[in-house]
Amino acid sequence: MTKRGRFITLEGGEGAGKSTLLAGLRDYLQQHGVDLLQVREPGGTKLGEAIRAIVLDPSHPDISPESELLLMFAARAQLVRERILPALDAGHWVLCDRYVDASYAYQGAGRGQPQERIAELERWACAGLKPDLTLLLDLPVSTGRARAAGRGAADRIETEADAFFERVRQAYRERAHAEPQRWRVIDASLSPDDVLRAATAAMAHLFETHA
Amino acid sequence: MTKRGRFITLEGGEGAGKSTLLAGLRDYLQQHGVDLLQVREPGGTKLGEAIRAIVLDPSHPDISPESELLLMFAARAQLVRERILPALDAGHWVLCDRYVDASYAYQGAGRGQPQERIAELERWACAGLKPDLTLLLDLPVSTGRARAAGRGAADRIETEADAFFERVRQAYRERAHAEPQRWRVIDASLSPDDVLRAATAAMAHLFETHA
Ligand SMILES: Nc1ncnc2c1ncn2[C@@H]1O[C@H](COP(=O)(O)OP(=O)(O)OP(=O)(O)O)[C@@H](O)[C@H]1O
Ligand SMILES: Nc1ncnc2c1ncn2[C@@H]1O[C@H](COP(=O)(O)OP(=O)(O)OP(=O)(O)O)[C@@H](O)[C@H]1O
Ligand SMILES: [Mg+2]
Ligand SMILES: [Mg+2]
Repeated sequence: MTKRGRFITLEGGEGAGKSTLLAGLRDYLQQHGVDLLQVREPGGTKLGEAIRAIVLDPSHPDISPESELLLMFAARAQLVRERILPALDAGHWVLCDRYVDASYAYQGAGRGQPQERIAELERWACAGLKPDLTLLLDLPVSTGRARAAGRGAADRIETEADAFFERVRQAYRERAHAEPQRWRVIDASLSPDDVLRAATAAMAHLFETHA
Repeated sequence: MTKRGRFITLEGGEGAGKSTLLAGLRDYLQQHGVDLLQVREPGGTKLGEAIRAIVLDPSHPDISPESELLLMFAARAQLVRERILPALDAGHWVLCDRYVDASYAYQGAGRGQPQERIAELERWACAGLKPDLTLLLDLPVSTGRARAAGRGAADRIETEADAFFERVRQAYRERAHAEPQRWRVIDASLSPDDVLRAATAAMAHLFETHA
């Protein structure tokens, strides 16, 4: 019987270094013989990428907070069922660039959607799937924005004001604090190598209990 | 002070004659001096039309029932806030080709999403907006499908089996039965003129109490 894979999510503000860390983790896990699925939110399926194109499109400036929340969960419900759960069942590990916690941070703390509303969506839209480990790349907002600025045109969410991203950062830290067994907070102002080292150290227990 | 407008929705299976009736109602209401907004679901906003393109696209065959439900409410939340509520506040009447009842019928009875889940979305996604009048164009499934067949390629939902549309029809009838003050059931096998006559008769009380 195949041992179920591990589900690891990466969270953090804009420019915190998630994509950079993911590339390092992919190599690390493959060297450890792990079969890996790497996906991003919103996206990762045909439906999800179509939704991503809508929600990040700066030419949709007036999407209501309710619609944004529903779209994020529409993409997520598809991603969980179509790709993540089948991969985990096949024994693969899954690395996901953002997951439900991003909705609590962005649509919740950022846009003001009530936490209980998001929790209710989480209950049925995600088929009960919780990450085994969530890495929070924590970074002052200004540092992250400066890093991200080098990357070309801002998407619809990146055009928000600093106060929005301060609320996002605070929400992430509070969630990590409230559920320390699932989260590891990484100081994302460290060098990329040090961030990767902190992340792989945080993963060691997943191999031990997984063997 | 402007008197708030009336919100009228049209429901029914494929080919029941909603679009045909809407054209007749538009003329009728304009002759009565009513300022009218006519919209359709999913759609009616830039966001909603983008969502419509996704959910009706037959090349997305495997959209999960959860995602479909969330997408329908994402389009609806935007439509209510961006167009319907402002129009009603301005004293205009709104004619909507499908609304929340369609989610109970299609995503609920059709696709098996629990009624309580839909009710919870209705509570917060629709900003409390209920129709003043809902017209159900009731028709045997086979008759509606035969009528609709003349119209070219089927969309993703139209490709469902008859049993799906029987559940949809039954759900509509049950909802109309449970809330008779809001609903009027119209025999959609009558001629277009007779259907329009039945619909305008069902509307008379909206003028009286509105004057
Ligand atoms: N530890 C680091 N120290 C300094 N610069 C970094 C570090 N990690 C990433 N960067 C740089 O910061 C920029 C943003 O990094 P990256 O794209 O990985 O962030 P991200 O969290 O994926 O952003 P987004 O949320 O927008 O996807 C890139 O130019 C990257 O090279
Ligand atoms: N009362 C009627 N009697 C006979 N044919 C009708 C009647 N009403 C509409 N039709 C015809 O049936 C077909 C479907 O009508 P219509 O497009 O109005 O249905 P609909 O409910 O809007 O369908 P859909 O749900 O697919 O949008 C059209 O060809 C229309 O001309
Ligand atoms: Mg990234
Ligand atoms: Mg129609």
